Amino acid sequence: MVPRIVEVRKNVLKKNDSLAAALRRRFDESRVFVVSLVSSPGAGKTAFLESTLRALVNRCRVGALVGDLATDNDAKRLGSTGAAVQQITTGTVCHLDAEMLTAAIDRWDLCAFDLLFVENVGNLVCPASYDLGEHLRAVLMSVTEGEDKPLKYPTIFNTSDLAIITKTDLAGAVGFDRAALWRNIQAVRPGIDVLDVSARSGEGMHRWLRFISARVKGAALGAAAETVGAAGS
Amino acid sequence: MVPRIVEVRKNVLKKNDSLAAALRRRFDESRVFVVSLVSSPGAGKTAFLESTLRALVNRCRVGALVGDLATDNDAKRLGSTGAAVQQITTGTVCHLDAEMLTAAIDRWDLCAFDLLFVENVGNLVCPASYDLGEHLRAVLMSVTEGEDKPLKYPTIFNTSDLAIITKTDLAGAVGFDRAALWRNIQAVRPGIDVLDVSARSGEGMHRWLRFISARVKGAALGAAAETVGAAGS
Repeated sequence: MVPRIVEVRKNVLKKNDSLAAALRRRFDESRVFVVSLVSSPGAGKTAFLESTLRALVNRCRVGALVGDLATDNDAKRLGSTGAAVQQITTGTVCHLDAEMLTAAIDRWDLCAFDLLFVENVGNLVCPASYDLGEHLRAVLMSVTEGEDKPLKYPTIFNTSDLAIITKTDLAGAVGFDRAALWRNIQAVRPGIDVLDVSARSGEGMHRWLRFISARVKGAALGAAAETVGAAGS
Repeated sequence: MVPRIVEVRKNVLKKNDSLAAALRRRFDESRVFVVSLVSSPGAGKTAFLESTLRALVNRCRVGALVGDLATDNDAKRLGSTGAAVQQITTGTVCHLDAEMLTAAIDRWDLCAFDLLFVENVGNLVCPASYDLGEHLRAVLMSVTEGEDKPLKYPTIFNTSDLAIITKTDLAGAVGFDRAALWRNIQAVRPGIDVLDVSARSGEGMHRWLRFISARVKGAALGAAAETVGAAGS
């Protein structure tokens, strides 16, 4: 039994990898920069993305694909920013895969976007194994989750290109130890960039927007970061 | 491809169900009450369990099995309470299953326990599908995670017997809406008991200990709940 499962799982991942490679080629050809967001449930992905979309929607052509087991709460919330948003309902599946993303992408004209966000299902384990063809994977974790999370969920941190510490406005209330978390992140993924943000207070959002604008072609996005940077802390 | 995966998954779950049924029989024969804890990473399972073990360790024969992808941080932390603790390292597997639990249980004399806790891997999706033969499954979620979690992760709430709202000491700081969360919990799992606790302040812990003692045979445990109840809020 077990070897057969392992075999099937290997094939699933192999199939996913080739679909992800095809997606990456399509993203590059359409000159759209794709960022995926992964985290536990409740780490604040949607609030962070909502705040990001609001800052960018009038400055560049930005869209978002949102994975959820059930409900289209997040898609509705993100759609209220004015950005193009698509819901991917996964049912009982605990992660997005390249096939689901391909089906969603096929409904859009990729050339109509400069920047696309993909919000994964809230899960610190399974999404780690599925390449989505994204250019940048950002792992989010809130100050309330405990500083040892990177050590306990190393793969998701290992496969990410950026770590974002969210809900920094609660740092005092929970006695958050930033140095300890930073050490633990660097222990599993040496050299990774770490940003601190609070979607609620806006703290750190200008640094994030500057970070993302530096990676996206298009002067419009740079201008957005400047504006938000000036207004931010 | 897909039908084969579905088929394998179905067989995996079927195999798990029969192992779980065997575990449940063993638990009943040994007169040990088994409680599993599920939640997202960072919802506070370990702090809650640590506090529970400290309150009970001198009053009844209590043990804990702790699932983690990597590290034995939690097992060490829980072991410091004096309770018998065993670590189950799952590697990249995103949930505990009945087979892993059986292997761990085989190392213990079940008759030496009145009460056993099983702390699952932090994940609101996958653990929902795996029966562990437990008598009670408690789903934990913290006040910082957002009130819509039950709607977005219905299966884990559906398959749980008790919902525990954790980190209530942070309710004010995050503008927690208890009525909204309660409504959403009841929408997916009508009639389920809901407890509010803060492992940090101790608030609500006496109600939890009373709840659990009512379900466990043995006068010693009842006495523990009384004592803690008197000291609690």
